[in-house]
Amino acid sequence: MTKQLSEAEALEVIKSGKVGHLGCVVNGEPYVVPINYIFDGNSIYSHSLPGLKIDAMRAQPRVCLQVEEIENNFRWRSALLYGDYEEIRVPSDRRNVLSKLLVEFPSLTPVESVMAKDAAAPDSIVFRFVIDRITGVAEE
Amino acid sequence: MTKQLSEAEALEVIKSGKVGHLGCVVNGEPYVVPINYIFDGNSIYSHSLPGLKIDAMRAQPRVCLQVEEIENNFRWRSALLYGDYEEIRVPSDRRNVLSKLLVEFPSLTPVESVMAKDAAAPDSIVFRFVIDRITGVAEE
Repeated sequence: MTKQLSEAEALEVIKSGKVGHLGCVVNGEPYVVPINYIFDGNSIYSHSLPGLKIDAMRAQPRVCLQVEEIENNFRWRSALLYGDYEEIRVPSDRRNVLSKLLVEFPSLTPVESVMAKDAAAPDSIVFRFVIDRITGVAEE
Repeated sequence: MTKQLSEAEALEVIKSGKVGHLGCVVNGEPYVVPINYIFDGNSIYSHSLPGLKIDAMRAQPRVCLQVEEIENNFRWRSALLYGDYEEIRVPSDRRNVLSKLLVEFPSLTPVESVMAKDAAAPDSIVFRFVIDRITGVAEE
C-alpha cells in the first residue's frame, strides 16, 4: 500500500514538478495556495504579486510545499518539503530568478514578462525557501 | 488579472471538484496533503487510515481545503474553505459516507471497498469539515 519515500525519491518528485501547493499559517489557521516554482537542488524559487500569501509568509516564515505526481489512484508519489521564506531583494538576483521562471513558464502573464526584464519593477516579489526537511509517500 | 470569486462561485468549484489539498497545522508548522472528498452543500466528507494527517487534525481541528480548476495559466479558479475537523463515529453514518465515497471513487483500494461494506472495520477513520468560511480567486 502506501510507503515512505526516501529523501532522494522525494527530491526527484520536487525536481520533476513545476506546480506545488504552498502551505503556510495565517493567524494560527492553515492556508494553502498553488504556486509555480523552480528548484536548484537546495531551494525553491517563486514569485508573487503582493497579497495575502506574501503577507502571511512575512508574518510567519515557516512554510511547506507539497508536490505530487499522480498516475492514478493506485500509483502516485507525493513529496513534502519544509523551509523558511526569504525575499530576494538584490536586483541582479531578482532578475536572474525571474528570467529562469520565464524560461520554465513561458506563459507568464505579460506583466510578469515585463518584470523579468525589469527587475526594478516594484510589484514583483521574488522569494525562496531553503529546504531543511523533506519527506514523501507513495503508492506503487 | 486575478479577481475574487463570490461565495457562490467558490462553492461551484468545490462542488465540481473531487480532489483537494488539505491544509492543517502540526506543532505550529503547516502541513499539506491531497485528499479525495465529497461535498453535500454544507460539509466536506473524507476518510483516511490512521497516521500523521489524522493525528494532526485531532490535535488541531482547524483545517482548510483548497480546490482548483485549471484550464491553463491564464484561466483558472481556486477555492479555499475553512472548517473544523469532526470524526463520524456512528456506524450507520460511517457506512453511509463510505458508500458515497465508493460511488464517487470506484477505484478505492480493495481494503477501502471492504470498509465501505463493513463500517465496523476499525482502521477506517471517516471525518467531515462543516464549512464556515469560503473564499476564492480566479483568472479569466
